[in-house]
Amino acid sequence: MTLAKPFLSDNAAAVHPRLWEAMRAADHPDNPYDGDSLSGELDARFTALFGRECAALWVATGTAANCLALATMCAPHGGVVCHHEAHIEVDEGGASGFFLHGAKLMLADGDGAKLTPEGIAALIDPIRNDVHQVQPHAIAITQASEYGRTYTAVELAALGAFAKQRRLGLHMDGARFANAAAFLGGSAKDAARAASGSVDSLSFGFIKNGGMGAEAVVLFEPEAAMQVRYRRKRAGHLQCKGRYLAAQILAMLDGDLWLANAVHANAAAQEVAAGCGDRLLHPVEANELFVRLSEAERASLRAQDFAFYDWGTNAARFVTAWSTRAEDAQTLGKAIAAL
Amino acid sequence: MTLAKPFLSDNAAAVHPRLWEAMRAADHPDNPYDGDSLSGELDARFTALFGRECAALWVATGTAANCLALATMCAPHGGVVCHHEAHIEVDEGGASGFFLHGAKLMLADGDGAKLTPEGIAALIDPIRNDVHQVQPHAIAITQASEYGRTYTAVELAALGAFAKQRRLGLHMDGARFANAAAFLGGSAKDAARAASGSVDSLSFGFIKNGGMGAEAVVLFEPEAAMQVRYRRKRAGHLQCKGRYLAAQILAMLDGDLWLANAVHANAAAQEVAAGCGDRLLHPVEANELFVRLSEAERASLRAQDFAFYDWGTNAARFVTAWSTRAEDAQTLGKAIAAL
Amino acid sequence: MTLAKPFLSDNAAAVHPRLWEAMRAADHPDNPYDGDSLSGELDARFTALFGRECAALWVATGTAANCLALATMCAPHGGVVCHHEAHIEVDEGGASGFFLHGAKLMLADGDGAKLTPEGIAALIDPIRNDVHQVQPHAIAITQASEYGRTYTAVELAALGAFAKQRRLGLHMDGARFANAAAFLGGSAKDAARAASGSVDSLSFGFIKNGGMGAEAVVLFEPEAAMQVRYRRKRAGHLQCKGRYLAAQILAMLDGDLWLANAVHANAAAQEVAAGCGDRLLHPVEANELFVRLSEAERASLRAQDFAFYDWGTNAARFVTAWSTRAEDAQTLGKAIAAL
Amino acid sequence: MTLAKPFLSDNAAAVHPRLWEAMRAADHPDNPYDGDSLSGELDARFTALFGRECAALWVATGTAANCLALATMCAPHGGVVCHHEAHIEVDEGGASGFFLHGAKLMLADGDGAKLTPEGIAALIDPIRNDVHQVQPHAIAITQASEYGRTYTAVELAALGAFAKQRRLGLHMDGARFANAAAFLGGSAKDAARAASGSVDSLSFGFIKNGGMGAEAVVLFEPEAAMQVRYRRKRAGHLQCKGRYLAAQILAMLDGDLWLANAVHANAAAQEVAAGCGDRLLHPVEANELFVRLSEAERASLRAQDFAFYDWGTNAARFVTAWSTRAEDAQTLGKAIAAL
Repeated sequence: MTLAKPFLSDNAAAVHPRLWEAMRAADHPDNPYDGDSLSGELDARFTALFGRECAALWVATGTAANCLALATMCAPHGGVVCHHEAHIEVDEGGASGFFLHGAKLMLADGDGAKLTPEGIAALIDPIRNDVHQVQPHAIAITQASEYGRTYTAVELAALGAFAKQRRLGLHMDGARFANAAAFLGGSAKDAARAASGSVDSLSFGFIKNGGMGAEAVVLFEPEAAMQVRYRRKRAGHLQCKGRYLAAQILAMLDGDLWLANAVHANAAAQEVAAGCGDRLLHPVEANELFVRLSEAERASLRAQDFAFYDWGTNAARFVTAWSTRAEDAQTLGKAIAAL
Repeated sequence: MTLAKPFLSDNAAAVHPRLWEAMRAADHPDNPYDGDSLSGELDARFTALFGRECAALWVATGTAANCLALATMCAPHGGVVCHHEAHIEVDEGGASGFFLHGAKLMLADGDGAKLTPEGIAALIDPIRNDVHQVQPHAIAITQASEYGRTYTAVELAALGAFAKQRRLGLHMDGARFANAAAFLGGSAKDAARAASGSVDSLSFGFIKNGGMGAEAVVLFEPEAAMQVRYRRKRAGHLQCKGRYLAAQILAMLDGDLWLANAVHANAAAQEVAAGCGDRLLHPVEANELFVRLSEAERASLRAQDFAFYDWGTNAARFVTAWSTRAEDAQTLGKAIAAL
Repeated sequence: MTLAKPFLSDNAAAVHPRLWEAMRAADHPDNPYDGDSLSGELDARFTALFGRECAALWVATGTAANCLALATMCAPHGGVVCHHEAHIEVDEGGASGFFLHGAKLMLADGDGAKLTPEGIAALIDPIRNDVHQVQPHAIAITQASEYGRTYTAVELAALGAFAKQRRLGLHMDGARFANAAAFLGGSAKDAARAASGSVDSLSFGFIKNGGMGAEAVVLFEPEAAMQVRYRRKRAGHLQCKGRYLAAQILAMLDGDLWLANAVHANAAAQEVAAGCGDRLLHPVEANELFVRLSEAERASLRAQDFAFYDWGTNAARFVTAWSTRAEDAQTLGKAIAAL
Repeated sequence: MTLAKPFLSDNAAAVHPRLWEAMRAADHPDNPYDGDSLSGELDARFTALFGRECAALWVATGTAANCLALATMCAPHGGVVCHHEAHIEVDEGGASGFFLHGAKLMLADGDGAKLTPEGIAALIDPIRNDVHQVQPHAIAITQASEYGRTYTAVELAALGAFAKQRRLGLHMDGARFANAAAFLGGSAKDAARAASGSVDSLSFGFIKNGGMGAEAVVLFEPEAAMQVRYRRKRAGHLQCKGRYLAAQILAMLDGDLWLANAVHANAAAQEVAAGCGDRLLHPVEANELFVRLSEAERASLRAQDFAFYDWGTNAARFVTAWSTRAEDAQTLGKAIAAL
C-alpha cells in the first residue's frame, strides 16, 4: 500500500536512495558482526562530528539504543528520571525494565515533555536517602521532545550541570536528534554539538530520517563502550551482517545528509504550521505538529487524502519526513487554514 | 575488502539479489512496525509450509529468535537442556540468561553436538525433584547441529516424544535449518516438515542463507505468539520499518528460494568433502566441514587464497554458502586431497 | 535502648511471649528447610481459617511475601496496578522490579490509599491494546491501607469482580491484615474471610502483630504454590531452620492470638483517636493514626516522652501495637486533646 | 520429632543457649530494620576480628549472603567461576541467576571441590576475548569446601594473587567458615584471618554453627557495602526486627563462641574419623565425613539409631555440629570400625 499525502509518522517513510547505494556497495563477503571496515569507522566519524572522544555502535532500534546506554549509568536497584510522557515510559513496552533489570523510571513534569533542573529537583528532592526508596542514578531526556520541542544549548548546559552536581548520568534519546540540530542551525558540527550539550550518551536516530534499520548509540564515556558491546550481543542486537547497518549510518554522515534531510523535514513542518495559527498546541521546533482539530475537521482533512493520527479527542498529530513533498506540506497547511 | 575463495562463514556472505529486489519493492511509506501487509502475510505462509497452525515473527538475529522462543517455555527459575557445545551456551554472550531472566542452561552430551533422549535423561534423571535444584523446563536442539550434523525425522520423533513425556518444551535453533532440510531432501514442504519434526518453536534462519538481517521465529503454540510479540517489543527488536524484514523472508519463501540456496551450499560442501577422505571429523550433512589439518597444511591452503577458521590446533572449519562458486569448492576439495 | 511510650511503628515492637515459647518448643534437631512437621501444618491451618483451599508458606518479610505472590500473576512484560502511595511502590526499594523481572507498577489514585474499580479503570482503560504499552496483569491492594483504612467485604467483592472481569490477578498486601480483620469484627474465621474477600493471594502479616521474623504467603491458586516454593528458594528466602518461622505463625493461629493482638492494638488506636477530634486526616479503621499537628505541638508531645514519626510538615503518624499499654494510649489521646 | 544420634546435617541442629539469651535481651521496642544499636555494632566487630576495614550485614540465609556479595563483583553479562560441585551451582535453586540478573556460573574442576589457580586458568584461558563468549568477572570458593576440605593460608594467598592478576573478584562462601578456621587453629583472630585470606567478600555462616537465622555478609570493599544495603532491601531481606539477627551474630562473636562451637564439631568429626580408616573418601578437615559404606553397612548403622544421608550408592555423609554429643561421635566411630 502506498499512502497518499502521508503525515502519519516519519518512522514509516521510505529509505533514502543514498542509503540504498551504500548498502549495495557493501554487498560482498566481509568480516561478520562489527568486524568489517565500515563498522570500524564509526568511532572516529562521530568523534569528529561531536568534537569529543566517543564510541559509536550501530543497533537496529531506538529502544535498544536507549536501553543499552541507560544500562551503563543506572544499576538495577536505581532509577532513571524521565518525563512522564517520555517515549521510554509510554511507548517502549517496558523495555527499560528489561534492559535495566528492574530499575525504575521516575516520572517528572515539564512543559512540552521537556525536563528542567527544577522539575527534576521537585521529583527527587523529597526522596529519602535510605534503602527503602529507589534512588535516582540517571536522567533521560528526548531531543527533540515527544511534543516536537527542542532543548537549546543553554537549557542543555543547565541540565548537564545539574546532572553533574547530583552525580547522575545524562542520556539523550535522539530519535529526532537531527531535527533538533536542524532547528538550532549552523554547520553540521555546530548543530550536532549544540543539540547534544554535554550528555554522557546519545541515541542518534537515523531511521526516522531516511534510514532502514540503523541507529547509533554514541557513548562519550569510553569505559561504557566496552560494556555496551557485551550487552548488545547479550540482547541479540549484534547482527552478523553489521556492515549493512554501518553503511547506512556512514551514508547519513557523508556530506551531512542527516542534517539536510532534517532541514527538509523541518521546513515542511513550518509550511504546515503556517496554516495552523493558534490551533498549534506546541511551538513547532522540529518535524512534529500537534494541532487542535475537531472530529469533523479531521474527517474533512482525511477526505482530502491526508493521513495522520488523532491525538486524543480534539487534536491531531502530523509528522513530516525527509521525503515529504513540499507541495503536500503546503497543501496541508492551506487545508487547515481553510477549515 | 572482498575475500577471495571465502569459506569463513555463511554469515558473512552477500545478500541474494532477489532479496534486494523484494526490499526495493517495499520501499514506500507504509504502516510502521509489523502493521504492514508483508508482515501480515507471515503467519499464513509458514502455516502453509509446515502444515501446522503457527505464528511467525521477523526478528533481526538468531540469538533473539532463540531467546524469545525459549522464554515462552522456560520460567526464570527453570532450565533449558542443550548440548554443551550448543550455540546458545557457547556463542551467544549469555543471551539466554538475559532473556530468560536467569534461567539455567543445563548441558548434555551427544555425538556431533546432537542430543538424544538417552543423553538428556542421563543429565536430568539425577536431578532431585526439590526446590534446591533447578528443574528442566525445555530442550533446545540445533538443526543442523554445530558440527553440521542433521537430525533425521526419526530422531526428531524420538525427541518430540521424550519432550512430551517429560512435559518439556522443545525448541529448535534453525540457524541452518534450510541446510538440514536440503539434506533430508524432497519438496520444500516435505523437507521443512521432516527437518522440524514436532517442535514447539523454531528459529528459522535466513541470514546465513542469503538474507541481510531477518530470521523468523515460528511458534506452533498459538498462545506463545502473543507473549512473543510483547517480549519482542520489550527487547527492542520490533523494528519500525519491519516491512524490509518481512520482504526478505517472503522473498526467501517465494519459489522455495530458501531451499534452492541451501541445496547449492550443501552441494558445494560435498564437493569439498570429496577431497577430504578420512580427514573429516564429522559426516558432512549440511554446509559445514570440520577437517583434520596440520598447521602447515592450513598455511598451504591459505597460501592458495582459501579463507577459513582454525578449529582448535589440528583442524579447520570450512563453511559453504548460497554464494559459494562451484569452482572454488572443487578447487578446495582438490587442494585438500593434494596435501 | 528502650523507648518510652512508643508509637513509632508496630514493626519495632517486641515479640509476643507465646511466640518465644513456641520457638523454644521447636528447639531440637529436625528436618531442615520446610521439611519439619510445623511447616507441614501450615496449608491445612490456613485452609481451615479461610474456608478455601490454599497453600501457605513462611517467609521472613512482607516485601518478599508480596513479591513472591505477585510474580505468579504478572509476567515480566506486564504490569501490576497499585495505589501511587502503596508500600510496594514507595517503600520496598524497588523489590517488585527485582522479583518480577522488570514488570511495571502502574499507579492509580484513590482516597485513603485504597483502590476502587473506577480508579483502576481510569488508569487502565486508556492503555492501547498494543505491544508498545505495558498491559496490566494484576492488581495489588493493601489491607489495611497505608493510611490505616480498611476495605469492607462489599468493597472487596467489587474489586474481585472487576479483577475477574478484566482477567487480572488480585493480590492483597496484608502487613496489617489482622488489624483490618479486627476492625471488620466477628469470629476469627468470619473476620479473616470478610477481610480477604476473594483475592488470589495474601501476604498475611504477623511481624507487626507480635512476631519476630515470619509472615505467611497464602496462595489460593494451588498451581501458584509450587512456583512460589521454587522462587522462594531462588530468592534466598528458604531458611534452613524454617521450623522457628512456622512455630511463630502457628502460635499466632493458636487460640486466635493474631486476632486478639490486633483487637488490642485497634482499641489502643481508638483511645488515641478519641482525643484527636477533627485533627484526624483519615478515619481510624486499624492501628494507625494520621493527625494534624504543628511543629510546636509535636515538640510538646515529644517533650512528654511520646515517640512517633512526622508525617510531612504539618502532621504526625502514630501506630499502636499488640504491646501498647492502654494507659499510654489514653495518656496520648488526652495529651493531644489538651494541645 | 527429636532425632536420636543425628548426623544428618549441622543445618538442622538446635540453637545455642547463649543466642537465645541474646535474642531475649533484645526483646524490647527499638529502631526497626538495621537502625538498632546491635546492628550498628557489626562493622566494628568484624573489622576488629579480621584486622581489615570491612562492612558486615546480617541476612537470613547463606544463599542470600553469597548472591548479594557476588552481585557487587559480577555484572549481568559476566560470569562467576566456581567448582562444578559448588553449593551455588548445585543446591541454591539457581539463586545466582536471579540475584546476578542472568550472569553465568562457569564450572571448574579441582580435588575435594576446591579450586586452584591452575584449575581456574584451564577453564578461562580458552575463552575468547570477544563479546560472543561470557567473560569471567569473579571467583567463588567455599571454605570449608563441599567435601569438608579446608583451604590453607598458602592456598588462599595463591588464589588471591591469581584473582588480582586477572582482575577478578574473589568471594568466599563460608557456610562452614568457622569449621575451616578451627581446623587451621590459633586464636580467633589468627584463625579467622588465616581462613579468609584476602578475599573481597565472605559469607560468614553462623546458622550451621548454632545460630537460628542469621549469617553475616562481610564486605572488605567499602564501596560494595552501600550497594549491598540497597540490594538487600530490594531482595526482601531487610527484616524489620533486625536486632534479633544482630543479637545472634554478636553472641557468636562474644567470647569467640563461633570458634568454640566449631572446635567442638570438628573434634567430634575426628572421633568419627578415627573409626573410618581407609573408608574415608576425603581427608576430614572440618565437620563433614564422606565414608565408603555399602547399603548393608548403612542399614546396620541406621539400625543402631544413627541418622545420616546416603552419598550416592556406595557411601554416606556424616555431619557433626556444635551440639553433637561426644559419646555419639565416639559410638559412631566405633560402630563404623566394627562393620
